[in-house]
Amino acid sequence: MTRSSLAGIPCSIARSLDVVGEWWTLLVLRDLFYGLERFEQIVSDLGISRAVLTSRLKSLEAAELIERRRYQTAPDRFSYHLTAAGEDLFGVLLTLMTWGDAHQRPFGEPVPVSLLCRSCESETAAVACCASCGEPLRPDGVGVRPNLGQRTPRTRLSLRPASADPRPDQPER
Amino acid sequence: MTRSSLAGIPCSIARSLDVVGEWWTLLVLRDLFYGLERFEQIVSDLGISRAVLTSRLKSLEAAELIERRRYQTAPDRFSYHLTAAGEDLFGVLLTLMTWGDAHQRPFGEPVPVSLLCRSCESETAAVACCASCGEPLRPDGVGVRPNLGQRTPRTRLSLRPASADPRPDQPER
Repeated sequence: MTRSSLAGIPCSIARSLDVVGEWWTLLVLRDLFYGLERFEQIVSDLGISRAVLTSRLKSLEAAELIERRRYQTAPDRFSYHLTAAGEDLFGVLLTLMTWGDAHQRPFGEPVPVSLLCRSCESETAAVACCASCGEPLRPDGVGVRPNLGQRTPRTRLSLRPASADPRPDQPER
Repeated sequence: MTRSSLAGIPCSIARSLDVVGEWWTLLVLRDLFYGLERFEQIVSDLGISRAVLTSRLKSLEAAELIERRRYQTAPDRFSYHLTAAGEDLFGVLLTLMTWGDAHQRPFGEPVPVSLLCRSCESETAAVACCASCGEPLRPDGVGVRPNLGQRTPRTRLSLRPASADPRPDQPER
């Protein structure tokens, strides 16, 4: 497995994928956002095997994205709930849903699930925006600066470092 | 493999994961956003095996997220570039990076890569916002409405359907 190598890459995308970068994991989290909280409900909703779901729930609990709560004894039964860190994945799921609505929807079909914004009461989509100014973050509107000494490519203008000192090997725009 | 079952789930998250829900796939896309475009550059940057990268590039090309361009003949050599659909994954990668910055960062370390917004010139993070009003989309500020007749759980208030007709089996808030 490639887990260890991924976690070792100094990149928050790689580190995140090390925890949630697996099909079923994100769908299990989706179900928890939808309000399912019991093992049998998730098995029934996703058609996932019990062995795979058991494994994913354990991993998610170990990563502190979900927590178990006992709702019955003799025999013990547990429900599953998102932690604060798990809830913070909401934006990832929404941007992924929006991308799928745009690019993975069979021709002529409606979006599988409409999103409704309670602020403006419109049917909406998710856009990744700047936490400071609220403007949408597009490839040509974002700069990156590596902080851990790692190589970061800078050949593409859209993601070139935003530092004020141009590098000699970087083409002028 | 679980691919076919995922693609069959009427959910844009599942459909998206069917295309990009694999560790290396999103990291390959990240490298293309960073400006890498040649096979050897990506191998060297990610430490990915040549066989896995070949497979991922083929899948991404088949899914029309990237395109190949020949930059040399005899022997033929190709560079890889994001299509418009590939570029649209930018927000997914940014929200994933922001989540990793918050929750998968070793204690005391800086974020691996700082994001800089060119609109407000601040170091920033990505937040999923409403495409209509620009407000951040939080679990308790979004409603969902399934459009394909699928069951959608509605036990959790945060993602209950936003329809005006309350269901008898739905608890009052």
